[in-house]
Order: sequence, then structure tokens, then C-alpha cells
Amino acid sequence: MAKKYVYLFREGNASMRDLLGGKGANLAEMTQIGLPVPPGFTITTEACNEYYAIGENVPDGTWDQVWPALADVEAATGKQFGDKTNPLLVSVRSGAKFSMPGMMDTVLNLGLNDDTVEALAANTQNERFAWDCYRRFIQMFGDVVLEVEHYLFEQILETAKEKQGVRFDSELSPESLKWMVGEYKKQILRSTGKPFPMDPKEQLQLAVLAVFRSWNNDRANVYRIINNIPHDIGTAVNVQSMVFGNMGSDSGTGVAFTRNPSTGEKALYGEYLMNAQGEDVVAGIRTPQPIATLAQENADIYKQFVENSQRLEAHYRDMQDIEFTIERGKLYMLQTRNGKRTASAAIRVAVDLYHEGVISKEEAIMRIEPQQLDHLLHRRMDGEAKLQVLAKGLPASPGAASGKIVFSAEEAERQGQLGEKVILVRTETTPDDIRGILAAQGILTSRGGMTSHAAVVSRHMGKPAVCGCDALKIDYTQKLVAIEGVEYPEGSLFSIDGATGRVIKGEVKMVDPELSEGFKEFLGWADEISRLKVMANADTPAEATNARNFGAVGIGLTRTEHMFMDPERIPIVQEMILAQTLQEREVALEKLLPMQEEDFYGILKAMEGFPVTIRLLDPPLHEFLPHSEELIVEITKLRMSKSDPKALSEKESLLRKVRALSELNPMLGHRGCRLGVSFPEITVMQARAIFQASARLVKEGRDIHPEVMIPLTMGKEEFVMMRKLVDETAQAVMSEQNVKIPYHVGTMIEVPRAALLADEIGKVADFFSFGTNDLTQMTMGLSRDDAQGKFLPIYLEKNLLKTDPFVVLDRDGVGKLIDMAVKLGRSSNSGLSLGICGEHGGEPNSVEFCHIVGLNYVSCSPFRVPIARLAAAQAAVNQG
Amino acid sequence: MAKKYVYLFREGNASMRDLLGGKGANLAEMTQIGLPVPPGFTITTEACNEYYAIGENVPDGTWDQVWPALADVEAATGKQFGDKTNPLLVSVRSGAKFSMPGMMDTVLNLGLNDDTVEALAANTQNERFAWDCYRRFIQMFGDVVLEVEHYLFEQILETAKEKQGVRFDSELSPESLKWMVGEYKKQILRSTGKPFPMDPKEQLQLAVLAVFRSWNNDRANVYRIINNIPHDIGTAVNVQSMVFGNMGSDSGTGVAFTRNPSTGEKALYGEYLMNAQGEDVVAGIRTPQPIATLAQENADIYKQFVENSQRLEAHYRDMQDIEFTIERGKLYMLQTRNGKRTASAAIRVAVDLYHEGVISKEEAIMRIEPQQLDHLLHRRMDGEAKLQVLAKGLPASPGAASGKIVFSAEEAERQGQLGEKVILVRTETTPDDIRGILAAQGILTSRGGMTSHAAVVSRHMGKPAVCGCDALKIDYTQKLVAIEGVEYPEGSLFSIDGATGRVIKGEVKMVDPELSEGFKEFLGWADEISRLKVMANADTPAEATNARNFGAVGIGLTRTEHMFMDPERIPIVQEMILAQTLQEREVALEKLLPMQEEDFYGILKAMEGFPVTIRLLDPPLHEFLPHSEELIVEITKLRMSKSDPKALSEKESLLRKVRALSELNPMLGHRGCRLGVSFPEITVMQARAIFQASARLVKEGRDIHPEVMIPLTMGKEEFVMMRKLVDETAQAVMSEQNVKIPYHVGTMIEVPRAALLADEIGKVADFFSFGTNDLTQMTMGLSRDDAQGKFLPIYLEKNLLKTDPFVVLDRDGVGKLIDMAVKLGRSSNSGLSLGICGEHGGEPNSVEFCHIVGLNYVSCSPFRVPIARLAAAQAAVNQG
Repeated sequence: MAKKYVYLFREGNASMRDLLGGKGANLAEMTQIGLPVPPGFTITTEACNEYYAIGENVPDGTWDQVWPALADVEAATGKQFGDKTNPLLVSVRSGAKFSMPGMMDTVLNLGLNDDTVEALAANTQNERFAWDCYRRFIQMFGDVVLEVEHYLFEQILETAKEKQGVRFDSELSPESLKWMVGEYKKQILRSTGKPFPMDPKEQLQLAVLAVFRSWNNDRANVYRIINNIPHDIGTAVNVQSMVFGNMGSDSGTGVAFTRNPSTGEKALYGEYLMNAQGEDVVAGIRTPQPIATLAQENADIYKQFVENSQRLEAHYRDMQDIEFTIERGKLYMLQTRNGKRTASAAIRVAVDLYHEGVISKEEAIMRIEPQQLDHLLHRRMDGEAKLQVLAKGLPASPGAASGKIVFSAEEAERQGQLGEKVILVRTETTPDDIRGILAAQGILTSRGGMTSHAAVVSRHMGKPAVCGCDALKIDYTQKLVAIEGVEYPEGSLFSIDGATGRVIKGEVKMVDPELSEGFKEFLGWADEISRLKVMANADTPAEATNARNFGAVGIGLTRTEHMFMDPERIPIVQEMILAQTLQEREVALEKLLPMQEEDFYGILKAMEGFPVTIRLLDPPLHEFLPHSEELIVEITKLRMSKSDPKALSEKESLLRKVRALSELNPMLGHRGCRLGVSFPEITVMQARAIFQASARLVKEGRDIHPEVMIPLTMGKEEFVMMRKLVDETAQAVMSEQNVKIPYHVGTMIEVPRAALLADEIGKVADFFSFGTNDLTQMTMGLSRDDAQGKFLPIYLEKNLLKTDPFVVLDRDGVGKLIDMAVKLGRSSNSGLSLGICGEHGGEPNSVEFCHIVGLNYVSCSPFRVPIARLAAAQAAVNQG
Repeated sequence: MAKKYVYLFREGNASMRDLLGGKGANLAEMTQIGLPVPPGFTITTEACNEYYAIGENVPDGTWDQVWPALADVEAATGKQFGDKTNPLLVSVRSGAKFSMPGMMDTVLNLGLNDDTVEALAANTQNERFAWDCYRRFIQMFGDVVLEVEHYLFEQILETAKEKQGVRFDSELSPESLKWMVGEYKKQILRSTGKPFPMDPKEQLQLAVLAVFRSWNNDRANVYRIINNIPHDIGTAVNVQSMVFGNMGSDSGTGVAFTRNPSTGEKALYGEYLMNAQGEDVVAGIRTPQPIATLAQENADIYKQFVENSQRLEAHYRDMQDIEFTIERGKLYMLQTRNGKRTASAAIRVAVDLYHEGVISKEEAIMRIEPQQLDHLLHRRMDGEAKLQVLAKGLPASPGAASGKIVFSAEEAERQGQLGEKVILVRTETTPDDIRGILAAQGILTSRGGMTSHAAVVSRHMGKPAVCGCDALKIDYTQKLVAIEGVEYPEGSLFSIDGATGRVIKGEVKMVDPELSEGFKEFLGWADEISRLKVMANADTPAEATNARNFGAVGIGLTRTEHMFMDPERIPIVQEMILAQTLQEREVALEKLLPMQEEDFYGILKAMEGFPVTIRLLDPPLHEFLPHSEELIVEITKLRMSKSDPKALSEKESLLRKVRALSELNPMLGHRGCRLGVSFPEITVMQARAIFQASARLVKEGRDIHPEVMIPLTMGKEEFVMMRKLVDETAQAVMSEQNVKIPYHVGTMIEVPRAALLADEIGKVADFFSFGTNDLTQMTMGLSRDDAQGKFLPIYLEKNLLKTDPFVVLDRDGVGKLIDMAVKLGRSSNSGLSLGICGEHGGEPNSVEFCHIVGLNYVSCSPFRVPIARLAAAQAAVNQG
């Protein structure tokens, strides 16, 4: 017997998301709790997966289950599919487990044909409505199911309007619409070689297949990669009887959130349009009315809707995003789902729901996607800045951005790859623009509301967006936008403020974000729950202070080379590198010592009370010298001009040194503690700077905890040698200064061999810090800089890697090695402190991994500290 | 109670090498079996190790044990230390577990002072002899123990000869010698601030300390690094009563081997000098007599010596290297040890001893150091070549070499680092020259015999050497050598033939070595005993044939990129790389296909009956393009001259492509199967070439076994994708050609992640080949090319790594990973074939490791196949 591939709405419930998809499960749940949902059924995700498994064929038995389900819908609605007097019309919609807004295809009004359109006209006594439905259906079906180019239908629409001499679609007469239907059908025959199918069952079969196919289209694949959604979970297909919001002025359609999705404020928030179909609202083509207006326009319907909304929020225990339709004065609930929201709204909703007694602290913690917080931690416009406001639109997604304006997604992507900051300016956006949105700093549209595609996607991605800014007159062909008569060509600098909707000329100064009280309270709960501590990577006192403000309990990584790169110091650093003898080198080091001492003094003081992990010099020395190619150009010029033999000789000498230091694979070259092995005097200088700074602070009564970290260790022997240099210097300074300094010496674990020998190294080290950037490079044999621009995207596209291993820690390979090192290290040193200081330290999935393998802390950039705190708490809730 | 640190010779035996060192254990053994050994005792290696452990202090109780042992020697010899009538004189010699010839220090005639010298003169009735002993003792003690510069004594010696007006040391009168003793003592007071010690016990204590210290001198450290001798085993000190070979014409000293150390021929082979001390023979200062001459000169002594020698060989069951002294007509045996021998001698001795019934096949196998075979497998002079022979010396170490002549070890080292081939030409060599000898292709000396330093060291290192070539007149200051009046400056091209002793002008054509019958028989025994199979790395049919001749049972690695590098093909390869479209690339690949097919046809045919493992294209594509720096110079010139805008534009375009392909860390970049993932058409072309060649051979009735190897795999998914391309191409060719081709598809394991995920990959691969070069680079985070010239020597010097991990496989780290991968791979695929194809495959210690972890085969360069076969057999004997 075939599997059950088809579920009536009344057969399912909210727990069946895997099988019915999010939309299907919620339609079933709403049906179960007695809300007015138009009857329908769901074809399962299993059917979709089976479809791909057997080479894109609908699995046996599917249609045998669809037709009885359809009969059930016919019985419930009293209508019949293809019936010439009372025809059933349905929508066919995709719906995966995870919401992928706009990524897959939808067909409405399915069931219309030359016969049923007449019945619809007769039953509604509205010929115009019926033919408008029909022409919309053919257009949508032609586009989505038959894959006829969209613009071919648009051309016919434009011709019809020209012929009739009208400006808006809504002004088209029934005759024009009928003419269009004829032209549409001709176009379909021309484009596909087959007539438009008149049999509603054939229409349904083709539409279901199109939804299955849409799972694998380019847009959907990209969306899944960006959002880390697996490719193999498939989509369900929802077939639902149609209700019409465009049956006249007593009909309408809308969407609403039970709380404000931008701020989290507890108030119904949404928009509706009378005499419109659902897609009109979200597509942003007409600017809709705020939901509150409905209370005046139709108090009864509004009351029903409010009750239903409250019931749904209470039922789901979370803020809901609800779609509804009013058909001739009757309210239907078409969809509910947990509403997408900005990060600040998400926090407010979670904190409020806790205080309302609806959810626990743990549940509150689990309600926020940590990655979303990133958004709150970005910069916003300086309140002091004087702004030349050009226009104002809807505050569609908070945050602020400056950049060059561009008018196409392709251009945004191109410029983005060149490192340019751009604002994507469009009349409206569509799912095809997804890569451009991703590449842009911010989005600005001239049409569409708070729930338009641009707004929803921007909020989700944490990009600032201003939508529905009518003042913009965009001319794509000339690549310019006119505002109040002034033209701005592509490349003009604009700023947008997604919190207020302002569009501003030029670049605007931004300021650092601060945490709201609610946010602090929320993160406090996270810390109560977490087992991992969160530290920060910081190289300056200012960064350290910043990190403290974001809740970091120490510094997991201070990169001393950033101090070497200071323009005032680089000549001294070069002097040290170019030294021919130990004596010369020591002279230069002597000059660097007081500078480094000041650096460490500042940072240790800023982190008083917490550990500060200072990594000794790590990069290869040639990074501090000029690039050989520049020198070659200069030398070739000097040789040809023969004008300055002295300069030539100096440049040649410098080039020789650069060449002597240059390496084929610098990542695996003369760097890390290998520098200290070759030039112990550099290590001694750095250690002296650390302990002299520490001694001063101890004398000032400060509670400081320097932790000296040896980079690129590959075995016990070299660690012992380096540790000896550090310990001896510490002893010397402590006895010179007559103070005691509490300190530790530990190592990075970033070379695979060090992980394999962690038991040996653990015996002599106080702590391990996994440098997951380099550990990933070496374990996977991937040079990050080379891979990310070149072949890594191909690996992700071809599904040879699940995620970019430099973003999400590779648990299978790198993770296995870390797990091994943790066990080996603890086996020989039970007091070993273990952490991670790669960029993975602020990435939620990787933080969860760190929790699972039992690290003591993660360390990440200051702005990611709140994300890591939340991720650590979620890991504790999820993993125990 | 203190440990027993001192053993009389009669208390020890040959099994106590660890404790007594090789020399001490053998002196004890000779004493035990009743040979005439001058009495003495040994201070243990434990005492030396303890000396270092407690900060260079002689451990408590040592002297308390030394004095009674000395008393025992006094009793045995009837002489007394410091006695004014019958004084005991002793030698003090170092002696570690492993022989380190000339690396540490020796003091002779210890016990002489102003009083005992008179007694010695009276007792021997030879004033000249006594004072010559005394001045030699002071000079040696001053140099070795008191660390006074050697040349200061030489100056006094030269002055004495001038004053007396003589040419040779032996002509110096007693008066001159007495004058010299006075001057030597003054020099010591000047240099050290203390008088020369007159107390023999103090002399002995200082000498023992000097031997302990000598364990850690620079020469000894370098020797241990080169010879893989651990640094922590310490040296013993042998204190032995002196006998004198220089007491007149009835005294003498010599060294002899029980068989010929160059050929292995069973005949006593050695040299002696009458009226000389032992050091005179080995130092090569006077050219000694062949041992056979002794039969005429003193038949009785010769007979005793032959008997003793035969007894020693039978006792030790191996060829012996024996030192003896004749004091006033009485024979003393001073030392015996297993004799160093050339590789061909070693094989002949082992094979002969087996056939003589002395040792088993297993013992024979264990008698040869595999590394030594390298020497037999190098090229020799072409018998057809016309040679301009300039001179003839002793055939001191077989093999032939050509190179530029240099006159100092430093210059040899410097030129060697620049990749120059040099012949080191010296009057004689000393242990200080060790680095120069290592860097040279061959050694040529004008003085010294077959047992001189140059000869012994060269034979051990497998370097050709011609010694004692009197015709050479070397002028170090002018850097030239004169032969029969013709002067040859430094840098002149010479060749030497160590098998005949010929010195030849210019470069000589060399021919490939062949295996002797004895060698083949010997290696046949090895194969009977081994568990590992030995394959070869070969890229051409000629190399494959060579490998077969050396006993390879297949090819473990064919590098297809070497075929791409062919000068005729490189333009087509570049065309492929620079292709803008898939179509363009396929046009170029179409041209490469028939060429690659011919390559594979030849190599598969040459290895008929055995597997041939073909690795798909591995290096990054930019390796096939010109270097960016060259292009930049050309472009800068073209820009400045403004002469040829077209050429400029072409070069600029090429530079852009070179830059686009250039990588920061190419080792971890776009190479290996990543090329196939990006450009599957390249993989398909290579697979097609392999299978089309195979199909032709199958049709010709050949028994061929192609094995397709995917490089740089990091996970299962990419391997599956690559395997699919190969399998599909194989299927296509087999059905086009209607043949069946037996083939396998496997992977390199060279990325640490692949080793960690070996269970996953094992499920879908037919074989693993550990690419230990890259696996070492990635696991240790070491770029081979960058490390070896720069910091790796420092790591070896500072003992942070035991051996160069690119020469000897790093068992601790890389080995642990391989072991893990072997277990994981076999756990998921019991039929998995496992091998190694890095350069470690021909290195004995690494081969042993491969045996231990249970690999199926090793693969190495053809010339190393015999070494690997022997090493594999030894591993089986040692490890079971």
C-alpha cells in the first residue's frame, strides 16, 4: 500500500511541520482549534522528497489520494471542481518546514477555464471580477507552471491598457480582460507549443509538479545556503479552496502581526487592502491601510479578527503573523505563523512574554535567533549629525547605512564584490533580487509597505531598509533617481535610516550601539543559564572597554602584531627585522619595549578583574616590509632611467631582504613561536613589556590577570623552550620590582599536530586556546584567502560542504580533532583551561559545539559578545 | 650507596654497550675471552648522563670508585701512577654506544710530568722517546682538556724545528723536545692563567671531565643529528694503561679489518706503521704499510694477530675492525668493533657469512643498514667514456662524482647550499670538515690511507673518495691545486672515481647502477621475510622499467602533471588554462587527450602484471603559467619605452590571469581534486586517456591494472563526485570499445581532515595512499620549502624536533594520524588497500612505521626500492 501522502487540514496539527511544512501544519492547527479556515489539504514533504529520489516522478499513489481529498473539499464548500454552475477554485502553494518567503511558487484561482469563468461571473454577478481572476490565473499559471516569460504577459497587459486608453489595471473593462485572456492563451500556445489546459484536474497536477520543481530553483537554493537550511527536507504543497478579497468593496485582504515586528510593542500591527487579492498586499504594488482603520470601516469584522489573533497568539505562545481575507463580509483566516521580527522586537516580545507569565526564561532565551542580534550591535546614525533629508519613506527595517546608490541587484552584487558599500534602490524588490540585497548595505524602495518583500527580507537579514518612499522617481534606463526634480545618478552617496524612514544625501557619521535595559536583562538570563564563559578578542584599551560593556568577562585574544603595525612604530619594527646582528636587533627591541609596555598597561587596566590573554608576535616578519612587486617596479624604473644609483642600490638591498624573508606558503612558514625559537630576544622583549606593565598595575593595587599565549605550537619541546623564556623574564621582573604577579602561560592549539599531542603539551601548559581559523586551514588543507574567493563557493553550490567552514566550525573534521585534544589535554592536566579564539567564537552553531565538547570559554570580537552569550545559553538549554 | 659508575675491563662484557659504550664493552669482552688487552676500566654512560642532569657536576661517588679501579690497573701492570721509578701511563678515551669516529676527544700518555718523564726515559733508555711522549701529552692535554688553541702549540713546534734546522718532527733532538715542553707549559700558563697540572690524579680528573664535556660539543651534536643518534645517551670514558708503538723499530701500531671493507672479500685488510702511535695511522699523516707486509717483517707477531683476528670475527660473528699495538715485540689488542664497510662489502660479507653457516638469513638481513644501499644505487662512470686521467690515489670509497673543486669545508657548504656540485679537495680532512663533506659530491685528499678520516667518513656516508693522492700540490692561500706543474684554480671541473682511485679532468658521463647477483640474492631473502610490498613512484615508461629492475611490484604514484610540463605540451596546457569558456577549454583538452593516452599506454605496458596508480592532475594551474615578477619587469619596461602598445596589452592581460590564479598559500589552494570539482572536464579527459589506453592494452592481451587516484581529498562528498566522473568515463569507454578493464578508484590521504574522516571515505574508496609529504606539511603546519632552508635547522639544533620530519616520518604527530586513519578506514572497509607514496616510502625508519601500522605497501623513487625492500624485511624481523 502506498504511503499516506495527502492530509486534509482537519487530519493534521502544528506538530507535523516536518511532514506538512510550516504553512500546512498551521493551517491544520487553525482548523483543529475551530478558526474559519477555507477547507483544503496538504501533499506531504515526503511526496516531494520521493519525487526527487525517483528521478523527478510523482510517487505512485499520490494522485489516488489527491482526488478523494479534493472531493472532501468539494463537499465542505458545496462547490465542484470544473463545475459549470458552482465551480470550486483553489490555491496551490508551497510550504516547507522552514519559512522561505517568496522563494517558491504559488498559483491562485486554479480551476478557472472558459466555462467556469462564466459561472464565476454569474454567481458573483460581477463579470469584470471573474475575467480579472481568469486573466490573473492564466498569467500566474503561465509564468509559474508553464515557465513562459513574465514580461510577455506584461506586454499584453500594457497593450490592453493602451488600447482602452486607461492607466491602471483596475480600470480595465471586461471586454479588455476577455481580449487579454485570448491573447494570453495565444501567447502560451506560441511559447510552449501546447494550448492552455482547460481541465482543472490537469491544471492541479501541473501546479503540484511546479511546486515540487520550485524546491530546486536557483532562488530557493541560494536562500537555503544563506540561511543554513538543509537541501533535502523538501516542500509540502497546500491546496486550499479560494476565498476572494477582490469581490468588491465588502471584500478585502490583509496581513497583521499580533505585536509590532519592529519594536515588539504589544499592539496589533498590520495592513489591509479592500477589494484586493492577498498578493497585492505583500507584493507592495498598492500601498495598504493600517489595520486600525478596519475598526472604523468594519467594526464587526475587526472585532472577530482581534479575537482570532489573540486566540492564535495564546495558542502558539508567541507573536503571530496572520493572513486573512474578507469575502463579501465574511472573515477567513488564511495563514498563521510565528512572526518574523527585528532583533529588538524579538527581545522585547520574549521579555514581555516572560513577564506576562506566558513563557519561562529558558523559553525566552530560545525565542531569539542569536545571529539576529548582530543587527542590534551595528552602528546607527549619530544623533548630533546635521542631515540633509531628501525624502521620507516607511521605516521598514531598522539600522542605518551609507553607500553609493545602484539600481539593479546585479550592480549591487558587482560593486559589493569590489568592496564598495552600496544602497540598492528599486521601485520594489522581488525574490530575484536576493543576491543584490545580500550585497548591499541597505535597501530603498519607492513602493510597497512594511510587509513588502523588501521590508520582510531586510528585517530578516538585519539590513536597514526604507520602503514605499513615493518621492523617488527611478529611471532604470538612465540609471538615476529624481527627488523633487533633482536628479541623482548611479554612484551618488546616500544614507538611509531604517528606524525613521529618512533618506539622506551624502554619508552620515555613525555611532556605536548600546544595549537597551531589556536587552541587558535578557542577556543576564542567558548568563544564568550558560556553562560557557564569553570573552572578547581586543587589541586596544578602547576595544577592551567596549567588550566589557557588551558583557565580556575577559580577553581571550590580544594580537600584539596589531600594535606593531602602528605607523609610528613600523620604522622601528623594520629596523628590528633588517638588523644584521643580535646587537642591532636588540637596539630596535629596546625602543619597542616601552611602547609595548604602554599597550599592555592600558589593556590590562581596562580589563581589571578579568583575565587578559596576550598572544606573542604571530605573523611572518615580511608582513611588516614593503611588497616585493612594488619594489620590482621601482627598481626596474631606476635601472632604466639610470638617474639615482644610490636609491637603486638601497632598493635592491631591501628587495634582497624581502626576498629572503618571502615564503611560498606564509601561513605555514616562519611565524608564531617559530619566530621566538629563531629570535628569543623578541619573545623576551614582549614578556618583559607584559610583566613590567603588570608590575606597575600591581603596585597601583589593581587586580590584573595576564595570560601569556604562545602561538603556532606544534609540540611540547618548543612550548617548553618558549615557556622558559617567559617564566624567566617574569621571575626577573618580579624580583626587580619586588611584586608578585599572578600569571599563566598557555598555548594556541591551531596546528593539527598540537591537537594530536595535546596530552603531552597539556602537561606543561596552563591553558589551551583553539585557534580555529588556522586549525581549519591546516586540517582541511584550505587557505582561507585563496578558497573563499575561488573554489569554496563551488563546494557550497555543489553541496560538497554543508557550510563555509570559516564561518561555521566544521564539526566532522576540525571538530573531531578539537574533541580529541580536549580529552587528551584534560587527561594529563585536569586543571587545564580550554577556550576558542577564532572567529567561530561568535558564531552560534560553533558556540554550541564548544559547549558540547566542554570548553570553558569562547572569545570573539566585542560586537559579537552578546550573540555568543545568547548562543551559549541556548546550547545549555538544548544540550543540557 | 652510590651507583656503580666504574667497571674494570674484566667486570664487563659485550652486552653492556648501553652502559659501557661500544668501545668499553668490546675491551671488556676481549679481556673476558683472554686476548692481550692492556688493563683498564670504564666510567659508565650513566655517570655522564648524571653529570648533565645535575648541571655539569661529576656525580657523588665517582672518584671513590675510580681510585680503587686505578689501583687494580697498577697491580695488573706492576706500575704506579706518578711513580718516579716505574710510572703508569694511561689513555683516556670517550666511547658512546654508537661509534662516532673522531667526534669526541682522546688524551694519550696521561700520567707524565717532570718526574715521571725522567723515569720513562730511564726505563726505556730512550730520552728522546720519553720527551717526545711528554710534549705530545702536554699538547694534547692543552688542546683537548684545557682548551688552548691548537695552533699555539704548532707555532712552538715550528719554532723548535727552525731553531734546530730540521724538517720533520722525528728529527727533533731531546734538547729541542725539552725546550718545547718548557715553552708549552709557559703557553698554558699564559692562556689559562694556571700552570700545567703536575699531579697525575688531577690530570686524570680533568681529562674525564673533558670527555664528558666533549659529548656536547658542536662536532658531536652535528654528527648525531646527521646520523640520527639520540642526544641523551651519553658517552662512557675508557681509562686504559698505555702501550707504546713508538718505542723504536720493534714497536708499531696498526688497524685491520677481518675482510675487505670496500669489497667484502674474505682477506685480512689493513695497515700499520712501525715506531708510531695509533693516532699517526688514522690521522693520515704518514702513509702506512699494508698489513701483509707484517708477515715478512715479523712473522710471529703477524701469526698471533691473524689468530686473534679470526677469533674475534668468530666470536662476534661479523667482520671486525681491530686496532693493535706492538710494544717492544709484544702484541696488544687495543680495540675491536664491527667494521664499517661499503654497502657492497656489507652485502658480500652478509651473504658469505650466511653461506659459511655463521648467520641466518634474518641475521644477514639485519646486518645491512638500509640507508647504506643508497650508495650502490647511485651512478658510476660510463665505461665507454674517454677520460683524461690527471692522477691516481687510493680507491678510498667507491662511487663516482663530478663537480667544481673547492678547498675548504666552508666553501663546499656554501656552494652546496646554492645547489652547486662540488668536490672537496684537502690535504687531509678532520672532524671539523664534517659539514663540508656532507655538502660535497666527493672527497679528494693528497695524504692519508684507506683508514684515514676522509676514507672512513666517506665510506660511511656513501660518498665517493680518493685519498692519499700524492700528485696533488694544494695551495690553500691561492686556492689552486697543481698536478704535474699544471695549476687548477678553485671552480675547475674534476671527476673522481672512488672505485679505482682515478682523478679525472672535466665532467664524466655516468651510467645507471645495476644490481649484482649477490645483491639480488640478498634482496630475495628480504622479500621472503617482508610483509610490506614495495612499489615505485614513476612518471615515464623508462622509470617504470627501472623500478621493475630494482624489484618494484607496481607503481604507487604516477604524477600526471609531469606529463603536462613537457615543453611541447605546455602551450596547449596554457591554452586550456586561459580558456574563457568551457568550449574553449574542451578544445584544448581534446588536443591533450591523445598525448595523455600515449603516456598512460606506455607506463601501463611497462608495468604489465602489476598495479599502476595514476594520480589525477594535482598542482595549482598557475604553475603552468609564467611567473608574475617576470611579467611585471617586462610590463614596466614596455610602459616606459612606449614602443609596443600591443605587446604591452597582451602582457597585461596575461598578468591579470596570472594574478587571478595566484594564491597566497598555493599548497593549500586551488589544486588536487579541487581542480576537478571546478573543471570536471579536466578529470573526464584524464580518465578517458587512462581508459582508452587501457582498452588498447586489454585488446592486445596485456594484463594491466590501472588504479585511479584522487588527490587532496578532504571529505567523502568530493570523493564521491570525482569517483562518479571516473566511473562514468570508464563505463563509457568500456562500452564504446567493448572490453572489460579491471580498475580501482582510490584517494590520497594527505589532508588531515581526510585522515580524521577515513571511515566515511573508506566506504566509497578502493584504496588509500598516504601522501606523507603534504600530510606532514599540513599536520605540522610546516611549508617544506620555507622551513627547510630557514627555521627547521634551528629546530634540529635546539633539539625541538628529533629529526627532519620531511626525511623521517614524524611518528608522534603525523604517525598518530595515519594510525588512526588506518584503523578507521579498515573499520568501514575491510578490503581497503593501504599504502604510502610520500618520499618517506624509501626511508627505513618510516618504512618500519608503515609496517607497524599495517599498511599493505610503500612506494618510493625507483632508486630507493632496494632500500625499502630491505627496510621492510628488517621491520618484519624487528617487529614481527
